[in-house]
Amino acid sequence: MAKDKALTPRSEDFAAWYNEVVLRAELADYAPVRGCMVIRPWGYAIWENMQRALDDMFKATGHENAYFPLLIPMSFIEKEQEHIEGFKPELAVVTHAGGKELEEALVVRPTSETVIYSMYAKWVQSYRDLPVLINQWANVMRWELRTRLFLRTSEFLWQEGHTAHASEAEAQEETLLILDLYRRFMEDWIAMPPVTGLKSESEKFAGAVRTYGLEAMMQDRKALQAGTSHMLGQNFSRQFELKFQSEQGREEYAWNTSWGVSTRLIGGLVMSHGDDSGVVVPPKLAPSQVVVLPIFRSEDDRTGVMAAAERVTNALREVGVRVRLDSREHLSPGAKFWEWERKGVPFRVEIGPKDLEQGQVVVAKRVYAEGEDRKLFLPEAEAVARMPVLLEELQSGLLEAARVRREDASVRGGVDSIEALGEALDAGAGFVYTGWSGDPAVEERVKEATKATIRVIPDEEFRSPSAPTTCVGGGAAKMEVVWARAY
Amino acid sequence: MAKDKALTPRSEDFAAWYNEVVLRAELADYAPVRGCMVIRPWGYAIWENMQRALDDMFKATGHENAYFPLLIPMSFIEKEQEHIEGFKPELAVVTHAGGKELEEALVVRPTSETVIYSMYAKWVQSYRDLPVLINQWANVMRWELRTRLFLRTSEFLWQEGHTAHASEAEAQEETLLILDLYRRFMEDWIAMPPVTGLKSESEKFAGAVRTYGLEAMMQDRKALQAGTSHMLGQNFSRQFELKFQSEQGREEYAWNTSWGVSTRLIGGLVMSHGDDSGVVVPPKLAPSQVVVLPIFRSEDDRTGVMAAAERVTNALREVGVRVRLDSREHLSPGAKFWEWERKGVPFRVEIGPKDLEQGQVVVAKRVYAEGEDRKLFLPEAEAVARMPVLLEELQSGLLEAARVRREDASVRGGVDSIEALGEALDAGAGFVYTGWSGDPAVEERVKEATKATIRVIPDEEFRSPSAPTTCVGGGAAKMEVVWARAY
Repeated sequence: MAKDKALTPRSEDFAAWYNEVVLRAELADYAPVRGCMVIRPWGYAIWENMQRALDDMFKATGHENAYFPLLIPMSFIEKEQEHIEGFKPELAVVTHAGGKELEEALVVRPTSETVIYSMYAKWVQSYRDLPVLINQWANVMRWELRTRLFLRTSEFLWQEGHTAHASEAEAQEETLLILDLYRRFMEDWIAMPPVTGLKSESEKFAGAVRTYGLEAMMQDRKALQAGTSHMLGQNFSRQFELKFQSEQGREEYAWNTSWGVSTRLIGGLVMSHGDDSGVVVPPKLAPSQVVVLPIFRSEDDRTGVMAAAERVTNALREVGVRVRLDSREHLSPGAKFWEWERKGVPFRVEIGPKDLEQGQVVVAKRVYAEGEDRKLFLPEAEAVARMPVLLEELQSGLLEAARVRREDASVRGGVDSIEALGEALDAGAGFVYTGWSGDPAVEERVKEATKATIRVIPDEEFRSPSAPTTCVGGGAAKMEVVWARAY
Repeated sequence: MAKDKALTPRSEDFAAWYNEVVLRAELADYAPVRGCMVIRPWGYAIWENMQRALDDMFKATGHENAYFPLLIPMSFIEKEQEHIEGFKPELAVVTHAGGKELEEALVVRPTSETVIYSMYAKWVQSYRDLPVLINQWANVMRWELRTRLFLRTSEFLWQEGHTAHASEAEAQEETLLILDLYRRFMEDWIAMPPVTGLKSESEKFAGAVRTYGLEAMMQDRKALQAGTSHMLGQNFSRQFELKFQSEQGREEYAWNTSWGVSTRLIGGLVMSHGDDSGVVVPPKLAPSQVVVLPIFRSEDDRTGVMAAAERVTNALREVGVRVRLDSREHLSPGAKFWEWERKGVPFRVEIGPKDLEQGQVVVAKRVYAEGEDRKLFLPEAEAVARMPVLLEELQSGLLEAARVRREDASVRGGVDSIEALGEALDAGAGFVYTGWSGDPAVEERVKEATKATIRVIPDEEFRSPSAPTTCVGGGAAKMEVVWARAY
């Protein structure tokens, strides 16, 4: 059966490996509509865990959820000039409904700034109604030509935050608060440490004053834009008459921010931690952190083994571990082993008759360092007691490994021409830090020559110890930037 | 300001009351697209609490969540004959995407049987792959002519469960398991006790073999179809080649069920418990169960009152109460009072300087019986300690009141003609139980004459003590049915 074939190794064809692992770990499948996907239960359960964590963080910082309509009048989308230019090529359009042609075409939301700020304009009269801090969990649609499961699909799930503030400073503060929140989420939950910073003009969101991005490095050293936080200024509030009476009694336009992360993060998780055996799900996001496998051949052994398996399962649950007892009998232990390996469950606990005799269980690690023992043979009580610690160690180990991988594949200094940049990338560099004059023409030339783009103008803590003085395109540098080939 | 105007009383115009209360409690607002709504934070937080409770119940009964695409090829929807006939008039259709006309039009899902069973057909080969027990939380679109916030909108949020089984008996069991789950949810959480039973042929889901419904009685005595659970037989599996190899090695079609409840439940909550002051949210679903209102005029009083308010807030949180401290200073106590009254927060705790002097706080009930004291004056510690009990008493009190209201407005026996049925309804009956021959022509005649329809053929426990012998349309009765005018 195709299911039991080994995955294409990452070193051979990373893109093929990615598709196979997503399909065979049952994270997602292709939908019958071009460019769309089905998120299968295992993938969706990871998304639910991401949602829960992010939602708690949003609420802890004063945000509330709401729901705005899927369909947006075409005239709304067209109001903000840069916005429509950015999104027009990707729109899916409803022209008929209820058996009739519509007077005005409706767009399936590609993002909801327009319809949301039109509503805020109804709700906000005074500075006392501000700030408005609302988030929405929703599906959006951007008709993409080249699609990849999770990474770029015509429909995807995301959250989009939309806020309105009385001052520019407050809006800027919100933009950065969310940038930091996203960063903590990606580090603490996905174990995927991003580099953060400002986007260049050419890469910013269509309609924003400035966009901040979070860029994570995948195992193939390409960058994944994992989230963005936009300071929108008054661009949308002017178009949608989102005005308020200030404390001084003046009529002013509100200041907006918007920000989002999507199911793309699941793709980032896979490409950050997966290996040639399958996905590795960080413990905090794993739908099951431990799978208990009872192993027996004879009916004689069954009773004792099953009793022990149930006892361990309950004991693990009691210490707060998300655990699943896999008692399916039509599958061999090996088949189960490979299934959970592919799906990335952090630990297996195997219990057989010999283990019972020896008063132990086997704890098998999904991830282990070279030279490290893959299996621990532990008394039942000790296995249970140690499991929360093992899970924490794995979580922080994955983050540390990803950070080391990122920095090992980052080049800082010494790259001061477009040729040198191309060579560094071809030699395996992921993120290349160089000086930049700020001239968009340099970005264009680099992109043409190397396929790399400016991922971010890095925030202070990511900058190189000594600021580069020359632009990679020649002349003096005004700032440091991070170049990478990106998803 | 319009906001401070009293609501239209229910007795004067129930429909106007409903719209006003939904808007002014900030549960929802009209969207700029015809027939669509915006669910505002207060309404959405109620929906989140409903989702959490239902989701836990689904998972406890072995269901998993997944996500299927929004857009469905027109050819899929057309495969099942009754299905397309039922849904065609309500479809919203995407004809253009990515700047081009599509080769095949795509339908914005009105429900997802077709696309979901086409996927199950890929995933299921053997009886060992069954049952498939999947639920999806999603938005759906049905282009409605006459819309009402929450009750009937072109777009709404819901969950749709879709299962596949190896036998008819298992599918039937699942259909009834969910019917019972929904019923428990509506009783235990919304305090909205439905009558359950089978739908007549003319009212069943387009494509189902049989549909079970849950019908709740609103305060205007109209019925609200609050949820449905469908036994689909093999109707869809045949169209989508959802086959499996049975334990005996035969190729067979799977048996399907589907079931859903939607944001319509929020409308049901409002019309079950609301009064002329606003919404009443049952404690288990209330985003805030208690609002603490510090009341002071002078700066001298502020410190002591605020300290007490914070102390009570924290103490209530510690005993597991969802509590909000309303310390907004630009609103008068009266304005806050009316706002929380409209929004339906179960209890207010008011704390002023005089209360402090007397070592007490005021607990004001959102709901109280005639003659009952509306306010309790309690020592701080006692107010905190009693709050969980007060909340439980309110929750069960609301359910009991709704049950009594429903039964008081139900007529059983004595109605054996269409004229008598019309008279009973005009005289204020909600649910009228009569005999029925099973002849669809009788349903038609009743509908024309009285606007009532058969809501359900009631499950055993809802049937009248003595079974009716004559059909309301004349002749012998084959069964008892429940008639009502419905939303």
